[in-house]
Amino acid sequence: MNEMDVLIVAGSENDLPYLKPAIEVFDHFGLVYRAFAVSAHRTPADLDPLIEEAHQAGVRAILAAAGHAAHLPGVIAAKTLLPVVGVPVPSSVLKGIDSLLSIVQMPGGIPVAAMAIGEPGAKNGALFIVRFLALTSDPLKKKLEVYRKSMAEKVREGQFGYKPKK
Amino acid sequence: MNEMDVLIVAGSENDLPYLKPAIEVFDHFGLVYRAFAVSAHRTPADLDPLIEEAHQAGVRAILAAAGHAAHLPGVIAAKTLLPVVGVPVPSSVLKGIDSLLSIVQMPGGIPVAAMAIGEPGAKNGALFIVRFLALTSDPLKKKLEVYRKSMAEKVREGQFGYKPKK
Amino acid sequence: MNEMDVLIVAGSENDLPYLKPAIEVFDHFGLVYRAFAVSAHRTPADLDPLIEEAHQAGVRAILAAAGHAAHLPGVIAAKTLLPVVGVPVPSSVLKGIDSLLSIVQMPGGIPVAAMAIGEPGAKNGALFIVRFLALTSDPLKKKLEVYRKSMAEKVREGQFGYKPKK
Amino acid sequence: MNEMDVLIVAGSENDLPYLKPAIEVFDHFGLVYRAFAVSAHRTPADLDPLIEEAHQAGVRAILAAAGHAAHLPGVIAAKTLLPVVGVPVPSSVLKGIDSLLSIVQMPGGIPVAAMAIGEPGAKNGALFIVRFLALTSDPLKKKLEVYRKSMAEKVREGQFGYKPKK
Amino acid sequence: MNEMDVLIVAGSENDLPYLKPAIEVFDHFGLVYRAFAVSAHRTPADLDPLIEEAHQAGVRAILAAAGHAAHLPGVIAAKTLLPVVGVPVPSSVLKGIDSLLSIVQMPGGIPVAAMAIGEPGAKNGALFIVRFLALTSDPLKKKLEVYRKSMAEKVREGQFGYKPKK
Amino acid sequence: MNEMDVLIVAGSENDLPYLKPAIEVFDHFGLVYRAFAVSAHRTPADLDPLIEEAHQAGVRAILAAAGHAAHLPGVIAAKTLLPVVGVPVPSSVLKGIDSLLSIVQMPGGIPVAAMAIGEPGAKNGALFIVRFLALTSDPLKKKLEVYRKSMAEKVREGQFGYKPKK
Amino acid sequence: MNEMDVLIVAGSENDLPYLKPAIEVFDHFGLVYRAFAVSAHRTPADLDPLIEEAHQAGVRAILAAAGHAAHLPGVIAAKTLLPVVGVPVPSSVLKGIDSLLSIVQMPGGIPVAAMAIGEPGAKNGALFIVRFLALTSDPLKKKLEVYRKSMAEKVREGQFGYKPKK
Amino acid sequence: MNEMDVLIVAGSENDLPYLKPAIEVFDHFGLVYRAFAVSAHRTPADLDPLIEEAHQAGVRAILAAAGHAAHLPGVIAAKTLLPVVGVPVPSSVLKGIDSLLSIVQMPGGIPVAAMAIGEPGAKNGALFIVRFLALTSDPLKKKLEVYRKSMAEKVREGQFGYKPKK
Repeated sequence: MNEMDVLIVAGSENDLPYLKPAIEVFDHFGLVYRAFAVSAHRTPADLDPLIEEAHQAGVRAILAAAGHAAHLPGVIAAKTLLPVVGVPVPSSVLKGIDSLLSIVQMPGGIPVAAMAIGEPGAKNGALFIVRFLALTSDPLKKKLEVYRKSMAEKVREGQFGYKPKK
Repeated sequence: MNEMDVLIVAGSENDLPYLKPAIEVFDHFGLVYRAFAVSAHRTPADLDPLIEEAHQAGVRAILAAAGHAAHLPGVIAAKTLLPVVGVPVPSSVLKGIDSLLSIVQMPGGIPVAAMAIGEPGAKNGALFIVRFLALTSDPLKKKLEVYRKSMAEKVREGQFGYKPKK
Repeated sequence: MNEMDVLIVAGSENDLPYLKPAIEVFDHFGLVYRAFAVSAHRTPADLDPLIEEAHQAGVRAILAAAGHAAHLPGVIAAKTLLPVVGVPVPSSVLKGIDSLLSIVQMPGGIPVAAMAIGEPGAKNGALFIVRFLALTSDPLKKKLEVYRKSMAEKVREGQFGYKPKK
Repeated sequence: MNEMDVLIVAGSENDLPYLKPAIEVFDHFGLVYRAFAVSAHRTPADLDPLIEEAHQAGVRAILAAAGHAAHLPGVIAAKTLLPVVGVPVPSSVLKGIDSLLSIVQMPGGIPVAAMAIGEPGAKNGALFIVRFLALTSDPLKKKLEVYRKSMAEKVREGQFGYKPKK
Repeated sequence: MNEMDVLIVAGSENDLPYLKPAIEVFDHFGLVYRAFAVSAHRTPADLDPLIEEAHQAGVRAILAAAGHAAHLPGVIAAKTLLPVVGVPVPSSVLKGIDSLLSIVQMPGGIPVAAMAIGEPGAKNGALFIVRFLALTSDPLKKKLEVYRKSMAEKVREGQFGYKPKK
Repeated sequence: MNEMDVLIVAGSENDLPYLKPAIEVFDHFGLVYRAFAVSAHRTPADLDPLIEEAHQAGVRAILAAAGHAAHLPGVIAAKTLLPVVGVPVPSSVLKGIDSLLSIVQMPGGIPVAAMAIGEPGAKNGALFIVRFLALTSDPLKKKLEVYRKSMAEKVREGQFGYKPKK
Repeated sequence: MNEMDVLIVAGSENDLPYLKPAIEVFDHFGLVYRAFAVSAHRTPADLDPLIEEAHQAGVRAILAAAGHAAHLPGVIAAKTLLPVVGVPVPSSVLKGIDSLLSIVQMPGGIPVAAMAIGEPGAKNGALFIVRFLALTSDPLKKKLEVYRKSMAEKVREGQFGYKPKK
Repeated sequence: MNEMDVLIVAGSENDLPYLKPAIEVFDHFGLVYRAFAVSAHRTPADLDPLIEEAHQAGVRAILAAAGHAAHLPGVIAAKTLLPVVGVPVPSSVLKGIDSLLSIVQMPGGIPVAAMAIGEPGAKNGALFIVRFLALTSDPLKKKLEVYRKSMAEKVREGQFGYKPKK
């Protein structure tokens, strides 16, 4: 495995599509990532080598998405000291409230940064990672400022009837 | 570790008192058990040797209790083929609804048998284990029949004014 | 009724389709089962003879699925000492949270092993039964090990870009 | 068992105190009742003779209270054609939302009349029974009218500063 | 208005279709009813004359269905001493949990008999009314017994593979 | 009844203490109010004369607080064209989520302005009324500006270590 | 910006369609409004000039709608002394319960008047504003009385079989 | 303001005690922080200068805690490009489920990293910040490894009867 900024892990193949907004953010910011479907429950033995390789590849953040009793982000956070961001996937009949509580209610000691349920959470998970990687990268910080402005512009185009005076 | 019927694991020292009703059931039925506090998140490396020793000690059931984002029963179920029973502990401000969903909403493939939140769940978790161990033990089955009758008697003593004609 | 390993009961004809994943598991493992729609409320008198026949047929586990105020698994557990596994069916407008609480929150004394809402729960209910039946059947235990590995392989095929080094 | 208007059943001895407001209502209206603790799960066999005796005693309404996975009212309603009123008891850590859903979400065919969680529900359950018994009893109807007026008077005494002009 | 057994009121025209199962039950049992859409909020002044006419028509039960903040059953129960049965309608984005709590959580003093959310609740609301009207009508009681048996038969036809020995 | 700015109504005597923060706000702003306990269910007949008198007294806002199935604010809003503000009271075992949904989920046509559950809601209900009364009263508007500043000062005193430069 | 009665703000372009019922109400009552999509999070800097212009245009009420963690109404209420009405939008997978709690549970000091989730809330938000603007406008008050009557008429047309005697 | 690693902001003075576990973590790791009570609603004008000074003091992370409709973390995240971690405080009668949803359900574009409700969340929020600051600080990384080990040791001391063989 080559150099890599972010490791993306989904709890199942079906959870991967929810991560598309995260991948678009990483592409936009030029971060190197790879995405895998590894189940905390069905393929737990695959997590250790994957995390080990991620450490060796210089990964600086892990984005983990899972549904139902979503243990994946917490289980990963227990196996690494890297920052882990969790995205609850609305794949069960409970629409992700189970995933959210399983991710956000981590007991004290092993932190996971929880995001919103589903696609907004995937986008924000990636943007949050960009925020802390930008702490030590001026080019990334500048891209982030530009991104923020163009996002605001886009909201403004959607406004009908109002543009603030510059 | 000597021969053992049931392995009891709590996610933290604070969760152990909730398991007292389970221990009373195992004592009543003469099942050999040992109880440990092992955190799926803070001491995940301790789980593998513990489960390994349990296999060697001939353990036939695992009772796991945890609160908050309660991953412990699911994480154990992913590491063994033994039946795992999960008890949600009401240790968070959400009173155990987080623990319950984190335990019961396991995705298809790795089963955990969820019980009620807190002490009724601990008692029933132990009784459920007795039920399936009694499938192949006539003495246990007989004890279970007696237990059931004396439980009914106790309910009847609490009744005021009514006793069914025998 | 001939020899039978598992009795499957659904609270209504409409709940039966949710049990398909359980039936696939039992077929895979060669367990003998029969499935019935018996309502705890509309046909309660049918439960006693059904359970009686199940006892005589040597049944060792009961899988019961129900929706709404899902009393069926608890009512069956009160009439037998066999292990009863409950699957909450998302057939009401509340999407199964009512079924789940009606099944999992059993008071102390009469245990029901609750599974996830809907199809993942049906699959896991069957797999949980296989787990405890495998305690006393080496062929079943071996099949379970193979099943577990092929499930992991299937997850791995869904991964894009990652396979652990053997 | 002598002549009796109402049969009161609580799912456990601990649930009986919640029924005090119901008993006060029945006493006030001079209805004959008897109260029992019979568990739908732990003493299910006691239900049939109890209901049978109730039928013979001329009972015209059953008030059933239970907590957790509160099956009692539904199970009774399945065994009789008498009107059954269910009171959810807040005896679990979930404060009765489990009891409420287990009672109110009865599937079509077997009706239970659900009341509010806890003591207001017990009081209203009794008053509801008085309402339909008053359909065929003029003395009861008159008492109900008086009760209603004195209840209003009591609310008015609690008002500070306002009394409607007569 | 002629003689009438049951008054049916829905909180809005849109809530009326949910009451179809109730109407089928009343038709089946030969009960005379009339149905109206009267809003507790938008046409509150219509409630008083409607209830007054119902009293004069000899109505013995009121079935009220409403959605959202479903005040209708409680508001009616405050204006009459007749038994009022409330059916929560799942017409809001919250799928009826708001309607259910607005109907079932009545404070002590003014009882409403709450049924399940939506169509099962409508059916059961009507059947509950039949139950207490049958207390003083032998023909109704007999019809109810027949209804119950044919309902059980219908469940049995849906069973595959099982019929209890007569 | 003399001239009055605000009518305060609580659903029961027990709900009145929750309104203390509202009364403090009205006192602070010199608004004339009177407070009553009138139950939408137990004393519905008192509402009409009370509202009629309020109209005659020149009342310009109604603050209504209630718990459980909290119909009071909606029932009042259906009887007047004055703006009605509703405060959900956490008086039931459900801690006010029932009160909140019963107040906020009003169907389209009859508006109630819902506030937070309990004391923060009572305070804000009063402040919201001040806001719209200040639209046509410069003295009130000035008092509101002063109030806002002193509230900010109070927050700042609670800060440790930080005061913004003026 | 010219004279204006009401400022409408939606948290995103996607939330605007939910406001159509509010706009119909304002059109019906001849209130002058303008609607904008301004995000409390993505374009927070646009809020200050917008509110400033609203003040200058004589705006007397602000209707703000937002979904997810719906901060917009609260953030606006913190920047103005005008009355702010909040409409929770069901745009997330949680169907607006998140939006509702984010809007209604404002801490004491900064009031927001919360309405029902989605379109009924938008309609009522506008009608609530009409109510308090009508306090000082007789023509508006008269229109409101007419509106109320025609709304009642419309409900009555939906009734089948019943019209109150005039 | 001198050099500072972390800015801590609580929504009110009452929310500060919940942050004690975070402060203990920062003290342990030798991170420089300052804590303030600034309300997103009552003192919004204080946020801009505070954030500006934080930027100048070289702050690399913001930990924000708030209760009820907890807008603070999102409002801060909208005003900075620094990573913002949000801790939901259980200060309302809803025990923090309102705070949690108001923090975690941020719409796409402005990320907030949500932690568990209350003290476990405060501790984990601080530990998460340590994780990403350790990405570029070897001493911090080493301290984190030591911390992790001693946390595991402490869990093990709480175990009764089990220590893994080294």
